[in-house]
Amino acid sequence: MYGMIATWRMAYEGVEDAVRQLAKGTGAGDALVAAIRAVEDEEYYKSVGYGGLPNEEMVVELDAGYMDGDTLSIGCVGAIRDFSSPICIARALSDEPVNNFLVGEGAEKYAHRHGFARKNMLSERAKIHYQNRVKELKQTDRKPYSGHDTVGMICLDIQGHMTAGTSTSGLFMKHAGRIGDSPIAGSGFYVDSQVGGASATGLGEDVMKGCVSYEIVRLMREGKTPQEACEQAVRHFDAELRRRRGQAGDMSLVAMNNKGEWGAATNIDTFSFVVATAQQPPTVYLVKRDETGNAHFEQASAAWMEDYVRTRKAAVERK
Amino acid sequence: MYGMIATWRMAYEGVEDAVRQLAKGTGAGDALVAAIRAVEDEEYYKSVGYGGLPNEEMVVELDAGYMDGDTLSIGCVGAIRDFSSPICIARALSDEPVNNFLVGEGAEKYAHRHGFARKNMLSERAKIHYQNRVKELKQTDRKPYSGHDTVGMICLDIQGHMTAGTSTSGLFMKHAGRIGDSPIAGSGFYVDSQVGGASATGLGEDVMKGCVSYEIVRLMREGKTPQEACEQAVRHFDAELRRRRGQAGDMSLVAMNNKGEWGAATNIDTFSFVVATAQQPPTVYLVKRDETGNAHFEQASAAWMEDYVRTRKAAVERK
Repeated sequence: MYGMIATWRMAYEGVEDAVRQLAKGTGAGDALVAAIRAVEDEEYYKSVGYGGLPNEEMVVELDAGYMDGDTLSIGCVGAIRDFSSPICIARALSDEPVNNFLVGEGAEKYAHRHGFARKNMLSERAKIHYQNRVKELKQTDRKPYSGHDTVGMICLDIQGHMTAGTSTSGLFMKHAGRIGDSPIAGSGFYVDSQVGGASATGLGEDVMKGCVSYEIVRLMREGKTPQEACEQAVRHFDAELRRRRGQAGDMSLVAMNNKGEWGAATNIDTFSFVVATAQQPPTVYLVKRDETGNAHFEQASAAWMEDYVRTRKAAVERK
Repeated sequence: MYGMIATWRMAYEGVEDAVRQLAKGTGAGDALVAAIRAVEDEEYYKSVGYGGLPNEEMVVELDAGYMDGDTLSIGCVGAIRDFSSPICIARALSDEPVNNFLVGEGAEKYAHRHGFARKNMLSERAKIHYQNRVKELKQTDRKPYSGHDTVGMICLDIQGHMTAGTSTSGLFMKHAGRIGDSPIAGSGFYVDSQVGGASATGLGEDVMKGCVSYEIVRLMREGKTPQEACEQAVRHFDAELRRRRGQAGDMSLVAMNNKGEWGAATNIDTFSFVVATAQQPPTVYLVKRDETGNAHFEQASAAWMEDYVRTRKAAVERK
């Protein structure tokens, strides 16, 4: 068996290519990094890599995490600026004996020493979004923050090796130096090849209050299916947050076990994800709620898929 | 009931003062921060706050985390330079609606804007340790890294409110920007007032592979005593690391539940910790191994306590 599951429609093209590689025997590390890199390099996805929305100072700061499910090795970068592929740097860090999680300028020095490519990660489109938001904020008292669509993936190769990875530009208009859940093991991602893996997208500040990715892997270890584990963890933690804080941030999780079975759960209505296995061609699913409020996932229609690309690539108007 | 438990002997004086405050009704937030701050301010403890050992560039970079067990609010700083009380900044961040985890320059900007005191955190003693190590490394092929004694605490106040906190200068000679487990929720600390809390010290790179603090709180939620939860989590994860990686980094955990019961576990022989409750005056415990290799904790003797202070305050010779 082999397979991949990833948060958000934006992962589709990367997953499509990567599972073709998995079918030919490519390892879970290379396949996962290639699939995430595809999202990072795509300018039209405004929450990951190049084209990601900047922080309050109009600087794009990126977070990424990588985990190996055999060794439990972890590599992470936080608030790194102007390097093109945070996931590749995170993976390189996972091979270091210590110093596996580097942030800010220190992360940039490491990346520079190891020959990673410099790139101005602020795209023209992202700059327009930023300038529009600054204008809007002068006119309204709307909260500055929005947008936190992390790409998070779990990968299983035909050898049974599993990996997890995340990459994001984090909250739009965040403070300089802000870290979300994406580079945090147990919160943004977790994987154990003997069980499975899980990854999160949503409001990092809330996801990290519950170590939700770790919890899902733990539930799978206890015998839950990925779907049961995702639903139980998300439903429980969403309720805890509401009870204790009166509200819960957006939270969407995907999981795959080492048999290639998969699951997803969310507390929002706009979540999409991509899954592909040896048995299932790459498919995008969307949340649908039934009359009792329970969430189900439905395959995205061809019309939805076309519309998605069109709206992403639409010209950004300067306000 | 009220109580505190903290990693390492160095927490003794801070805990002693803080439990006197707890007895008078001071809240778990103020008591915990005061106790950690006492360690941060003490020059002779070379792994926390002022006097902490610097990174490879002779810069002291500090990590700290704070968690509120009622709301699950978290505040963290990573790789922050030249502010005197990382735990106070972490606590302030836990009150923000988002942007709760700040690193590097961004964390320093936040601290500056919020009026926290600047301080050159590199002490003369730390500088001598650094220069000695640089000389040593030129003469031998010893690994550069050593020393990672985080102060981690759990606090319970008479209202039943619980908090957790950590503060550290991290690995001596670490890369610039390196983050350990101390500011990572679930790894360096976790607390839920409905259950209890746990905190870690050791090799952060390994602790964060297992979300060990979260796991201990989870085991207590299932009904384990703090001692059972600590032992089970540490023994299990130490064995997992050895099986998968051939070795396991130092790892020591302390825990307290919301009844003031406490526990500790470690995979090293030099661990000490401090505990105090309404029923127990502040006490330092040390690891002892029995003939079967099982660890027990024994109260530190008066001679050990005196010797500890003497060796900490001994003049540092320039090599």
